[in-house]
Amino acid sequence: MSIKIEFAQNGICAPQGFKASGIHAGFKKNPSKKDLGLIFSEKECNAAAVYTKNKVKGAPIAVTKEHLKDGKARAIITNSGNANTCAPNGVEIAKATCSLLAGELEIKNDDIIICSTGVIGEELSIEPFKKGMPRLVKKLSEEGSTSSAKAIMTTDKVPKEVAVSFLLGGKICKIGGIAKGSGMINPNMATMLSFITTDAAISSEMLRHMLLEDVKDTYNQLTIDGDTSTNDTLAIMASGLAGNKEITGEGTDYETFMQALNMVTTYLCRELAKDGEGATKLLETVVSGAPDVDTARVISKTITDSALVKTAVFGEDPNWGRILCALGYSEGEFSTDNVDVTISSKSGNIDVCRGTTAVEFDDDQAKKVLSENEIMLLVNLNTGDSQAAAYGCDLTYSYVKINGKYRT
Amino acid sequence: MSIKIEFAQNGICAPQGFKASGIHAGFKKNPSKKDLGLIFSEKECNAAAVYTKNKVKGAPIAVTKEHLKDGKARAIITNSGNANTCAPNGVEIAKATCSLLAGELEIKNDDIIICSTGVIGEELSIEPFKKGMPRLVKKLSEEGSTSSAKAIMTTDKVPKEVAVSFLLGGKICKIGGIAKGSGMINPNMATMLSFITTDAAISSEMLRHMLLEDVKDTYNQLTIDGDTSTNDTLAIMASGLAGNKEITGEGTDYETFMQALNMVTTYLCRELAKDGEGATKLLETVVSGAPDVDTARVISKTITDSALVKTAVFGEDPNWGRILCALGYSEGEFSTDNVDVTISSKSGNIDVCRGTTAVEFDDDQAKKVLSENEIMLLVNLNTGDSQAAAYGCDLTYSYVKINGKYRT
Repeated sequence: MSIKIEFAQNGICAPQGFKASGIHAGFKKNPSKKDLGLIFSEKECNAAAVYTKNKVKGAPIAVTKEHLKDGKARAIITNSGNANTCAPNGVEIAKATCSLLAGELEIKNDDIIICSTGVIGEELSIEPFKKGMPRLVKKLSEEGSTSSAKAIMTTDKVPKEVAVSFLLGGKICKIGGIAKGSGMINPNMATMLSFITTDAAISSEMLRHMLLEDVKDTYNQLTIDGDTSTNDTLAIMASGLAGNKEITGEGTDYETFMQALNMVTTYLCRELAKDGEGATKLLETVVSGAPDVDTARVISKTITDSALVKTAVFGEDPNWGRILCALGYSEGEFSTDNVDVTISSKSGNIDVCRGTTAVEFDDDQAKKVLSENEIMLLVNLNTGDSQAAAYGCDLTYSYVKINGKYRT
Repeated sequence: MSIKIEFAQNGICAPQGFKASGIHAGFKKNPSKKDLGLIFSEKECNAAAVYTKNKVKGAPIAVTKEHLKDGKARAIITNSGNANTCAPNGVEIAKATCSLLAGELEIKNDDIIICSTGVIGEELSIEPFKKGMPRLVKKLSEEGSTSSAKAIMTTDKVPKEVAVSFLLGGKICKIGGIAKGSGMINPNMATMLSFITTDAAISSEMLRHMLLEDVKDTYNQLTIDGDTSTNDTLAIMASGLAGNKEITGEGTDYETFMQALNMVTTYLCRELAKDGEGATKLLETVVSGAPDVDTARVISKTITDSALVKTAVFGEDPNWGRILCALGYSEGEFSTDNVDVTISSKSGNIDVCRGTTAVEFDDDQAKKVLSENEIMLLVNLNTGDSQAAAYGCDLTYSYVKINGKYRT
């Protein structure tokens, strides 16, 4: 079965029924930087979210979890500049923010998903929310995707948004997404936030199931520096306005939607990796020939996360021994006896290792391949049929600079 | 019981019966850099070793494992500059090296422990061994500890050696040690090699048992960049010349020896951390109040290994949110509800977090504490009595520079 999925315009507002906005409310010092973002659905949505596995969690996560117990939502609000984590009265502030927004939008408090990203351990003031909320709601528009994508940025260099279009039972459905990654206003966590909208009709249970499946190959395979933030949140809202038959279980429509969702999340993950703190290159490691997909996932992520591999990619150095080394300390049981490694980019491929042994290669060609800004490491274990990829970036002087700067 | 353990002179040659040497044999291009080191015992020793957990292992490890099956050894030979890993004929070259040395020293091949450190995936030539071996053996001396410590260096900035003296049943015993860490001739793995000698009489079984116990709190708690090399080896030889009653089981003498051994290995670990690639500061994380020691070990190591914590220490930034974040994503089950964090150095202490919540602190004082070159992070979980430490260093521009440079 061939499914046609096409890129579409308008990001998070591509699906029917969604508006978005972003303003500067005062969490960031620079008044030209947006720091409060909103996504709003005219219709009550089925909704689901997955959160950071970090045991220390931002206060908004507790509030969002409570609000999503009924699997319904109509709005996502996010401030950037302060993570509302390990801060006094965090939960109270998050709840008060929801009350303000609920009043302004005339919706229920528990239909709101709330997120924060920024510095940890500083008290979050309710004042910028109070002052900004009427303006934020007034600015809601079907052209607001980019504004809301900008409002959730910290030191991300570019906003990240995408939309796709596809058919479910003859009805045009869309999925839109925005995301923010490795950034900070004062050096801090690379909190990952990603919000997805769709007009497809899907039950909350299936939305949650799909997110959990999807992240195994996307957000959970993304690593900038191995630090899992306290605030990571991926949330999805489905308005059902596309008019398709509601997806309530697995089957053809489920598969189609999963494929479209995966296209959106993979796109956003690659964008997040490319814009990793200090990154100059996207690093994508594809492990094939693995005994099972979990092993392929672990190995690809371990290689992508290796500081020595990342610095070698930054230095455009075909130092494949480091790839073998990271492969070797990856968790799991697998054979390292017959490993092939190829480095690939749009400038070509270069084989550097065959059967776990050095092969001669042309240094000039390797340099050329590595000079590109999107580098793929292709690792074949030659022991099975499973494959997985991981997404990351190089480790650069700028990473150290960004993260070594004084907090104050 | 109070045990007196004192520092002693002469490093690896402090215990009776050991000589050492180091020469330039030609593995490194620079003729002023030693690259072939030897430790020799006039008497057959009980011996044991522990190795990297990396699934990709250097060829010398296979040969050393075979040679240590009988728990006996008389010599440790190491070349630096080429790791003899993923290289053609690696095992043959390692065996041939042992034959050369056995002939020169008139000992058995299988009494030799062999190690290599340096670039991965390049063929190791037997020629420098052939040419250098007579000179290496001729240079053996009781003053040779520093020479042998230098010969195993790659980009380590300083040789690392230590010795201690203590009593076992009224007999003076000594333990000596050398180590090399994060370095390379061409950018490569931070292979850790550490060799320990003692004149105490101990069975091979107990030596192995002690190494396995000791590394849990020392080498396994050391992290420069999270990359576990293919060649890491810790080996110990016990000549028995001190004349104590042989330690063949647990008890008072075992405890005393363990304590002395731990003093040697902790010292070397701190030296290795301080001289980590590009390091400007030693970072020591002590986790107390943990429910069990394994949890304390995991948390302290996870914090010490966090790129965000390491860059904050480099930047002298009291960004304790990152410490909480790394604590939170540490594996294991533990409560994060009542965590205290204090940053400490010889300039004083600064409390930054109490009960998992921000506390106000003086930024100038924090800056002063963090300006020192040995920084301790004190993390109290307040949930139990167990404690553990981990050793690492800051993440700096130089780390990126050292590891980003072209291999060729």
